[in-house]
Amino acid sequence: MRFGKIVVIGVGLIGGSFGLALKATGRGGQVVGAGRSAANMAVALERGAIDSIEADVAAAVQDADLVLISTPVAQIEKIFLSIKSKIKPNAVITDAGSTKRDVVAAARAVLGGQIAQFIPAHPIAGAEHSGAAAAHAGLFRDRRLVLTPLEENRKEDIEALAGLWAAFGARVSRMTPEEHDEVFAAVSHLPHLLAYALVSDIGARPNAAQLFGYAAGGFRDFTRIASSHPEMWRDICVANSDQLLKEVIRFSDELEKIKQLLQTQDAKALETLFAGARAEREKWLNGEYE
Amino acid sequence: MRFGKIVVIGVGLIGGSFGLALKATGRGGQVVGAGRSAANMAVALERGAIDSIEADVAAAVQDADLVLISTPVAQIEKIFLSIKSKIKPNAVITDAGSTKRDVVAAARAVLGGQIAQFIPAHPIAGAEHSGAAAAHAGLFRDRRLVLTPLEENRKEDIEALAGLWAAFGARVSRMTPEEHDEVFAAVSHLPHLLAYALVSDIGARPNAAQLFGYAAGGFRDFTRIASSHPEMWRDICVANSDQLLKEVIRFSDELEKIKQLLQTQDAKALETLFAGARAEREKWLNGEYE
Repeated sequence: MRFGKIVVIGVGLIGGSFGLALKATGRGGQVVGAGRSAANMAVALERGAIDSIEADVAAAVQDADLVLISTPVAQIEKIFLSIKSKIKPNAVITDAGSTKRDVVAAARAVLGGQIAQFIPAHPIAGAEHSGAAAAHAGLFRDRRLVLTPLEENRKEDIEALAGLWAAFGARVSRMTPEEHDEVFAAVSHLPHLLAYALVSDIGARPNAAQLFGYAAGGFRDFTRIASSHPEMWRDICVANSDQLLKEVIRFSDELEKIKQLLQTQDAKALETLFAGARAEREKWLNGEYE
Repeated sequence: MRFGKIVVIGVGLIGGSFGLALKATGRGGQVVGAGRSAANMAVALERGAIDSIEADVAAAVQDADLVLISTPVAQIEKIFLSIKSKIKPNAVITDAGSTKRDVVAAARAVLGGQIAQFIPAHPIAGAEHSGAAAAHAGLFRDRRLVLTPLEENRKEDIEALAGLWAAFGARVSRMTPEEHDEVFAAVSHLPHLLAYALVSDIGARPNAAQLFGYAAGGFRDFTRIASSHPEMWRDICVANSDQLLKEVIRFSDELEKIKQLLQTQDAKALETLFAGARAEREKWLNGEYE
């Protein structure tokens, strides 16, 4: 077994589900959890996502074969600093961060000559529920797992890590960190920002109670991601601010065009826009973009 | 039975579900369907949503006690013109339009002295699936039904209509047409427009296939309403263009503020925005705005 002792730093939805998936697939001889919240760690332990708790991350990683850092991205650099001098030379460090350029930059800055040990990764398995209580062994099934490997990474380490995620049912693919941050700014970070913005704006109005009172199923699904973890999304927005800014500007331009269609009551252009969007979405749902 | 013969003009998701709910609750002695699509009407008949088909709306309404017009809103004026001279003096006409000022204006312009017979209504029960095939008897259960009655309406007619919707499980409430269009511009029409805009923009990019390929559950729910009926939403956007324009401008201003937060990487303000939105949404989900 390539990864006998596995340390999960940040045992939330992703880290907890990783632990449960390890157990469900009979992998990971020993899973140790480390993290900020003692209460959350106790839930993870009780649910069997981890075998033990080690509050001190430096102590936890000493004899680890694999370290998964699944915290909000802004904490990762500090964790690299804490574990750097403790990890074994053949241990693999990986992460589950929703942005990749910032994590790779932090790894290069902190890990220096140990950079080959860090394999950046992003499981595309977010949910509006967070914490170990929401974790489940099947979270990664049929979901994408994006690796953004570094040229220094050992081929066999990448394959071992990819194999682990594949065993959890994930569809593993590779990108560069730059490509990753560009793609997810468009299909994940922007929608989150739009959903947060809408709910925030409605909540701030004098007639918020009336408005929410008439909001229905369409609103509920559209805004589901506005129930996502605020700290996690703060970190993503800061880490990917340049790409996200491009997306917000692009979307604002799109709204400018729509404003004109409304002003001129251009029924035909509106219908074309809507029909085109529906057709694209149907193609996507039918798996034509897989 | 106040409504012995009921004519449903436009037997799609709403009209078809209305027919099925009539049957499921043992109301409506005879339900006649009228509409544009013979294929869709055949589905409605086969599914038992209607008892018979009468292609000619003027012929269909002749001895009706209740006429429900559940077509896209731009067609309603023409239907008023067709049925005006045919309906019985004590028949009630109602609709299921997603906008109310335009429908009321059309009713006043066309029906003249018969205006008392028209009771405007809007069941808040949209879905991304349309047509009689998607209809079901429970569609209105626990959903809102908004009446925007006119001062000319007979009190007993309003109560009979409200009672029918309540029998289907709907939560009936009342608003003015102006208030209705303002509220739904914010919580329904704007989100639809944003979802359509996002999918349309992504679909138009050279790397659309890659972007859709990495879109996940958050994107799916956020854009669910972009699979809604294009013609129906075209009509809503045109009919409610003034209120919707206000909402688009307001949302663009909101995006302008967010742009600045991204430009200055204001982590604290972003987290406050996200946490506030999440808290509002949780309050809403917990029924604190009912």
